[in-house]
Amino acid sequence: MDRQRKRVVTFGEAMVRLTPPGNERIERTRSLDLSPGGAELNAGVTLVCLGYDVRYVTKLPDNPVGRYLVRCAREAGVDTSLIQLAPESEGRCGLYFLEEGTDPRPSAVVYDRADSAIARISPGAFDWPAIFDGASAFHLSGITPAVSEGCKAEAFAAVRAANAARVPVFFDLNYRSKLWTEEAARACFVEIAPLVDVMFASRGNLRTFFGIEGEHEEVLHQACHHLGLAACVLTRKRAKASRSLRLVAYAMGRAGGLIQTDWKEIEVVDRLGGGDAFAGGFIAGYLEQPDDLTHAANLGLAASALKHTVPGDFLCATRAEIVAAMTAADGGVLQR
Amino acid sequence: MDRQRKRVVTFGEAMVRLTPPGNERIERTRSLDLSPGGAELNAGVTLVCLGYDVRYVTKLPDNPVGRYLVRCAREAGVDTSLIQLAPESEGRCGLYFLEEGTDPRPSAVVYDRADSAIARISPGAFDWPAIFDGASAFHLSGITPAVSEGCKAEAFAAVRAANAARVPVFFDLNYRSKLWTEEAARACFVEIAPLVDVMFASRGNLRTFFGIEGEHEEVLHQACHHLGLAACVLTRKRAKASRSLRLVAYAMGRAGGLIQTDWKEIEVVDRLGGGDAFAGGFIAGYLEQPDDLTHAANLGLAASALKHTVPGDFLCATRAEIVAAMTAADGGVLQR
Amino acid sequence: MDRQRKRVVTFGEAMVRLTPPGNERIERTRSLDLSPGGAELNAGVTLVCLGYDVRYVTKLPDNPVGRYLVRCAREAGVDTSLIQLAPESEGRCGLYFLEEGTDPRPSAVVYDRADSAIARISPGAFDWPAIFDGASAFHLSGITPAVSEGCKAEAFAAVRAANAARVPVFFDLNYRSKLWTEEAARACFVEIAPLVDVMFASRGNLRTFFGIEGEHEEVLHQACHHLGLAACVLTRKRAKASRSLRLVAYAMGRAGGLIQTDWKEIEVVDRLGGGDAFAGGFIAGYLEQPDDLTHAANLGLAASALKHTVPGDFLCATRAEIVAAMTAADGGVLQR
Amino acid sequence: MDRQRKRVVTFGEAMVRLTPPGNERIERTRSLDLSPGGAELNAGVTLVCLGYDVRYVTKLPDNPVGRYLVRCAREAGVDTSLIQLAPESEGRCGLYFLEEGTDPRPSAVVYDRADSAIARISPGAFDWPAIFDGASAFHLSGITPAVSEGCKAEAFAAVRAANAARVPVFFDLNYRSKLWTEEAARACFVEIAPLVDVMFASRGNLRTFFGIEGEHEEVLHQACHHLGLAACVLTRKRAKASRSLRLVAYAMGRAGGLIQTDWKEIEVVDRLGGGDAFAGGFIAGYLEQPDDLTHAANLGLAASALKHTVPGDFLCATRAEIVAAMTAADGGVLQR
Amino acid sequence: MDRQRKRVVTFGEAMVRLTPPGNERIERTRSLDLSPGGAELNAGVTLVCLGYDVRYVTKLPDNPVGRYLVRCAREAGVDTSLIQLAPESEGRCGLYFLEEGTDPRPSAVVYDRADSAIARISPGAFDWPAIFDGASAFHLSGITPAVSEGCKAEAFAAVRAANAARVPVFFDLNYRSKLWTEEAARACFVEIAPLVDVMFASRGNLRTFFGIEGEHEEVLHQACHHLGLAACVLTRKRAKASRSLRLVAYAMGRAGGLIQTDWKEIEVVDRLGGGDAFAGGFIAGYLEQPDDLTHAANLGLAASALKHTVPGDFLCATRAEIVAAMTAADGGVLQR
Amino acid sequence: MDRQRKRVVTFGEAMVRLTPPGNERIERTRSLDLSPGGAELNAGVTLVCLGYDVRYVTKLPDNPVGRYLVRCAREAGVDTSLIQLAPESEGRCGLYFLEEGTDPRPSAVVYDRADSAIARISPGAFDWPAIFDGASAFHLSGITPAVSEGCKAEAFAAVRAANAARVPVFFDLNYRSKLWTEEAARACFVEIAPLVDVMFASRGNLRTFFGIEGEHEEVLHQACHHLGLAACVLTRKRAKASRSLRLVAYAMGRAGGLIQTDWKEIEVVDRLGGGDAFAGGFIAGYLEQPDDLTHAANLGLAASALKHTVPGDFLCATRAEIVAAMTAADGGVLQR
Repeated sequence: MDRQRKRVVTFGEAMVRLTPPGNERIERTRSLDLSPGGAELNAGVTLVCLGYDVRYVTKLPDNPVGRYLVRCAREAGVDTSLIQLAPESEGRCGLYFLEEGTDPRPSAVVYDRADSAIARISPGAFDWPAIFDGASAFHLSGITPAVSEGCKAEAFAAVRAANAARVPVFFDLNYRSKLWTEEAARACFVEIAPLVDVMFASRGNLRTFFGIEGEHEEVLHQACHHLGLAACVLTRKRAKASRSLRLVAYAMGRAGGLIQTDWKEIEVVDRLGGGDAFAGGFIAGYLEQPDDLTHAANLGLAASALKHTVPGDFLCATRAEIVAAMTAADGGVLQR
Repeated sequence: MDRQRKRVVTFGEAMVRLTPPGNERIERTRSLDLSPGGAELNAGVTLVCLGYDVRYVTKLPDNPVGRYLVRCAREAGVDTSLIQLAPESEGRCGLYFLEEGTDPRPSAVVYDRADSAIARISPGAFDWPAIFDGASAFHLSGITPAVSEGCKAEAFAAVRAANAARVPVFFDLNYRSKLWTEEAARACFVEIAPLVDVMFASRGNLRTFFGIEGEHEEVLHQACHHLGLAACVLTRKRAKASRSLRLVAYAMGRAGGLIQTDWKEIEVVDRLGGGDAFAGGFIAGYLEQPDDLTHAANLGLAASALKHTVPGDFLCATRAEIVAAMTAADGGVLQR
Repeated sequence: MDRQRKRVVTFGEAMVRLTPPGNERIERTRSLDLSPGGAELNAGVTLVCLGYDVRYVTKLPDNPVGRYLVRCAREAGVDTSLIQLAPESEGRCGLYFLEEGTDPRPSAVVYDRADSAIARISPGAFDWPAIFDGASAFHLSGITPAVSEGCKAEAFAAVRAANAARVPVFFDLNYRSKLWTEEAARACFVEIAPLVDVMFASRGNLRTFFGIEGEHEEVLHQACHHLGLAACVLTRKRAKASRSLRLVAYAMGRAGGLIQTDWKEIEVVDRLGGGDAFAGGFIAGYLEQPDDLTHAANLGLAASALKHTVPGDFLCATRAEIVAAMTAADGGVLQR
Repeated sequence: MDRQRKRVVTFGEAMVRLTPPGNERIERTRSLDLSPGGAELNAGVTLVCLGYDVRYVTKLPDNPVGRYLVRCAREAGVDTSLIQLAPESEGRCGLYFLEEGTDPRPSAVVYDRADSAIARISPGAFDWPAIFDGASAFHLSGITPAVSEGCKAEAFAAVRAANAARVPVFFDLNYRSKLWTEEAARACFVEIAPLVDVMFASRGNLRTFFGIEGEHEEVLHQACHHLGLAACVLTRKRAKASRSLRLVAYAMGRAGGLIQTDWKEIEVVDRLGGGDAFAGGFIAGYLEQPDDLTHAANLGLAASALKHTVPGDFLCATRAEIVAAMTAADGGVLQR
Repeated sequence: MDRQRKRVVTFGEAMVRLTPPGNERIERTRSLDLSPGGAELNAGVTLVCLGYDVRYVTKLPDNPVGRYLVRCAREAGVDTSLIQLAPESEGRCGLYFLEEGTDPRPSAVVYDRADSAIARISPGAFDWPAIFDGASAFHLSGITPAVSEGCKAEAFAAVRAANAARVPVFFDLNYRSKLWTEEAARACFVEIAPLVDVMFASRGNLRTFFGIEGEHEEVLHQACHHLGLAACVLTRKRAKASRSLRLVAYAMGRAGGLIQTDWKEIEVVDRLGGGDAFAGGFIAGYLEQPDDLTHAANLGLAASALKHTVPGDFLCATRAEIVAAMTAADGGVLQR
Repeated sequence: MDRQRKRVVTFGEAMVRLTPPGNERIERTRSLDLSPGGAELNAGVTLVCLGYDVRYVTKLPDNPVGRYLVRCAREAGVDTSLIQLAPESEGRCGLYFLEEGTDPRPSAVVYDRADSAIARISPGAFDWPAIFDGASAFHLSGITPAVSEGCKAEAFAAVRAANAARVPVFFDLNYRSKLWTEEAARACFVEIAPLVDVMFASRGNLRTFFGIEGEHEEVLHQACHHLGLAACVLTRKRAKASRSLRLVAYAMGRAGGLIQTDWKEIEVVDRLGGGDAFAGGFIAGYLEQPDDLTHAANLGLAASALKHTVPGDFLCATRAEIVAAMTAADGGVLQR
């Protein structure tokens, strides 16, 4: 808690995740485990673990379900003072059901997020200039503008306000086909990219939305230069099995020079939020040592790897544990 | 299973109930117990327990959440062949969260049922004349027409088709203030009452919606005659505490003569669905001995009392157990 | 553990109890809680709580289910060295399912105990003279001779060996209608009574099996004198509700003089084994102060009352706690 | 549900499976998870998943334990109208305890199935000609004739009635050494084989019971021709570890031509019922495309693989999911 | 959250509570439920529920157990910025085990709190003048000075600093005989009383520590005048049974005039923290309407009553719910 | 149970282990699973599984937490008559929290064992000559002397008494850096080694504490000769992942000749107590066939491997199962 607590703002939709225990199927389960989730909230929680002052911007119904999410964010150490709690008539709380599969059954998400309070916001819902006052970074994913027209408008308002306040913008190029079409997403992403400082992406999404193709180095180079990014980061996953993964990250700044981390071996407890934890870790590393993308990528990878070892979308780890996970681990038992 | 299986049709919305275990509050819980619910489905399950062939009419999304409800109904022995499973784009599955309180904290229901598949149906969704072919009874509650305009239209279509097919109509005068106004409900109830054969109600609702006032005898007399009912039934509950209730039922047919059951002492495990179990039990008794309202009321009361002793909205009991519960119980242990 | 550990021998059938959690019905449950049970074993456990060296005689299959019971008895402090573990071919392990009801639904036991290893024993299975060497008491219930002809033969062999060794015999006049007829039971009980020193009974059973009728005093007097008992003990239960009981005990020795304890108020967690705990407590009190039946009855009542407050058939309490429960309790919180 | 619902009849013993959670040993567990099981019932459930009208023939006690199994079958969509519910005096409900091991501890089954209601049936218990009226297939395993003489007699009665009704007979050559000797099994299998159309087997069992030896192709060829089968199917499992399997299937019709599927990688959640799911899937594929054994084998393999990924003996999957599992899966998360 | 958030400071020891589920005994349980507790923390949580900005002062080890408590406080909305997290070498985290009894078995607390980090603090551990800057109230219980000499010194330092800053001091006269002797407690309480503005007490403790005796009115009058209090508050509990209580509160200010609330009927889910919730509610009411002790007492009683209906030491309720509980409740189901 | 029950004495600290379920982190968990642990107790339990009469020497508080451990030891078949139960004032019960990690998150132990009853013992606490009367072996680990000065003194007293009674001493060279420094440990180990007959160690510890280096053969040779051991045993673990291990054992007697077992593949359920189970198995094998170290090593390895497949620190297996695990297993399902 003794870090020079830089402030990071994130904005998006928080949802209640409902998971049948024991790999059971939803249609047969008799109970559901609850946990909180939301791409930007997840990333924010990782930043809290790393010592940052994280303010999460969203809107939730002031009912027990919405308050559940506020409590979870608060428990994780996120500053919830910017969360708007509104009457239930202004929208419900988004939910999603998660079925945890094992090979050859894929894990499956059933969204039940329509008509959420955040989806129904109108322009001007948040006072972005005030929100960015004193902030060191803003993080957004491609999911938020997909939630609704109102969210898209506020996403652009937020990004532009961050630009105006010289707060660097981190953007995770997530695409959710359930929420909008590729065309709609492309129009949005093309418009937002020039306003972004650092982008997290996959090679597939860079090809789909920006027509950038090639090997990692080529793709990163093009992304930085064509999209005007200060840096671009890719992660790649190789699944040996649902329960066993290998992760690696690639990054490049405008100055060029491909950064590649070592592969990280992971025994999966819960894979959701892994990409968000990577973003959170990378942002922290980048804010601390902007010129050392290797550090940022390794911190992101360590945070992501640890996230895979705990249940739920949120990472739960101390900074010391994340730093320790940057170096090798051998499956032993730590005596404390 | 050897009863002369009369067929009863019920129609309404089925929902997934989500309950925190151990009297926990929703905003603090880490897991939720699932169970199925829905006024007409609940009543139907009681009728299955009593040996009837029950066909439940509703529409659900063909996703794991919707299929969960189909499985639950099927497990309980309800005939689900009339349930329409539709693509998720045609509507979600209704949910409700239940917090089980103890004095002085009331139990609380948080609905999350908007935009359900059944709420979005259009006129003509169901082929009522075919559905009532061979049926002995139709049961409906005041909740169904409150769900949406489409549901209201189908409720009237169903009731009129039942009338045409000379299938007696049972109607539970439930009012849900969250779903519509008193005015809207009154307009609907006033229109539907003349189409109904047997009505379940509370004194409060008869006063609110039909202006009928007075003691039980007076109220039942007016209800039968002013509303043109073959019979009207009231239940009354006296809560000694959340965990301890007393129930009694009053009934009267058009011929008059107040029927009153003995008070029934109940130690509550779960109070939801208690009224629906009463309706189911009464319908069975009425179909078997239409001239003996005492029998019907006692069967309804026994079913309702037993429902209070099991978790979830559904009764789970054999006909023999329900009949046994019509006579006294002493809290002993049965050796079987 | 510093008592002058007198040895008590008990003999009977141990079974695995399977209970659906949360008042659920067996046919709907998805899990079952396991616990051990058996009238004489339960009584033995209470005697262990009170500081006695208890040796339990039974026969169980040497499979995981049988060994579960051995482990449970051992955990509770019972000496299991006299338990015979036999190949599965010599009989299975008895089970019983318990449904915990609340008013007006009675708790229900579904036995699945046929063909158990103990039921299949042949005469001479146990070396009773050796078993009673050094023993201070023998306890048996009316269930054991009902289990099978082999058990009945061994029960008589045991009682006669105890008589021969001048070990006092305690007998609980339990009748299980599922196991034998009243006629068969009567023949057995009439034969066994003269061999018994102290009998636990209900007024109903004394009437049914011995034709003894009247008020408590009269009944106890007759039982002592007609059956030749050193003492006879009755308990009486008044259920305010399934979850709330009042208990009282009556006792009389051959010298006469009705002993009646105060009524004991009990909030029930689990009522099974309550009578067995009473027997265990009474036996301990009787062994310690044979001339003070009030002490024995109060110790039995305290043990029984505490048994009702813990899950499972076994009491779990220290001697100090049982003694403390002999005097009033006020529902407070003890700070230790 | 819109398939041209062909009807399949299966016959056998259903049992309650009792499993300690968390890899615990039976003798130490404090709770047991319940699930339904039975070779032919399991296969039937897979056929329901694939859109078939499945009627399961068995006999169960009309007590809560027996009704539990009826409810489970009903929940899974099986038609239970042919299940006979009989008084408890006519037999108990079979149980089995399952311990889930990991290497090097094998999973272990402790049967407690003696004296079940189905084991006690007498010839003529079921009206097979009526049962097969309108049926497209009959499935039986080698376990059913092993249960008792009565079951064996009825198994033959059923198979002969199926032959008479020209309903194809599928037979799974399961051998349970706990239920009968190799000699007894051989006599039965040799007698039943000529009455069978399609046999599921392992190479080991073909050698043991029919003396057929050799590589897969040779073995299948001999089985088809010596036993007079329309088709024979083998599955082979290679365990990398208890939690990680590879499966493959081989099949051949009378016309010859070895069919071999690709190996399927499986991360095991629960391996019981995997062979039954294969049978169910194969039967469906065979009924749909009798000339394409590759299709049938792949459908069987996909169903079996998915079964390994869900808890319990029953598969729970939609036809679309099973078809999707016929092609590769990569351990990702499906967004629905 | 729109209240004019007055700040309240509380100071004490926070502990992890470990509770066997299902009324099980500690020595037999296989799992423990965790929840946070601590008299002043509990009171603070109630104040958060009522809209206050609560800052909790304590010291905890910076290990997972200590951080658990920080997370719980944060989740409940308590400002944890004043909590000192120290190396494990500076002390452990206090624990206590709770056994939930039912009549006649008392609930029992087994403390395991020795050598906690807060117990080992030295004078000057906290900067009280800074802490009280801007505060509206300070709350302390009699447990804190009992924890250790260091805690006692800091308790006095805190109270004196509050006096100096004209921050009103609320003191709950709790006595824990496990922590110190009556003599030691008396010396402390006699010294601290003159520094206190409002005292919560029982008649028994006022007699024991201050020699004040008599009926409620007399006792309150003496307490206010002899101890120099602005107000004194008593609560009284009548247990109908462990699961069923009645509560009432009495209060008096220096101006005299006995205030008595109505008795409140409570069905108990968890009784711990009930007194602390009363203190929290009373403080809130007092800060809002210092001249209306009836309001404060009723708010305290409502908060306490609701606390008894939720698991754990912490209240979880909205201000609206607490206000609603000030008036009667009837055990119904609220439709929201 | 029909073994010629040789008696083995073990001595050490028993602790309650508290484990969050589902790989959850301690600071986020809402419940903890309890299980017993303690190096020498764990080894003793394995010896009980193998048919030995094991007497465990320790001191515990006579409160529910201490009695929990006594019950667990008793359940596992350990003779607890030598356990001293003392007033709580003489020390608490040691606890430890275990977080089960997966790669790259290490499992972590948080000790909370200071000030335990056993840590506070004074010289002469146990009557070692009497304890060793009739004993065949004594087992101790390097943890016991590290617990406190009192424990170290008693450890030496015990070892010397064993030497005097010609009871062979087995010593597991465990080092816990949290309990003492390397220097303190070295002094103790150097002093104790000459009193030991058989030592279990790792190469690392032999190097650290005795300066013995080299390959397995060389190291074992030196250990036997320089330390004067009758035999020395090493185990080596290769973690493929947290959930997947390979184990091997090396042993040598004074006569020389390196013994190496085959590698054993293990799918890990719970790795704690694995080394203790090895010790227990080796001791049994050694006592039975002192000249066949291969047998002892294989028995140790089988016991250890099985221990890894069950939850908790204690092995739970029959002798037959352990012997079966000495030969290969293939992940199948055993039908019993």
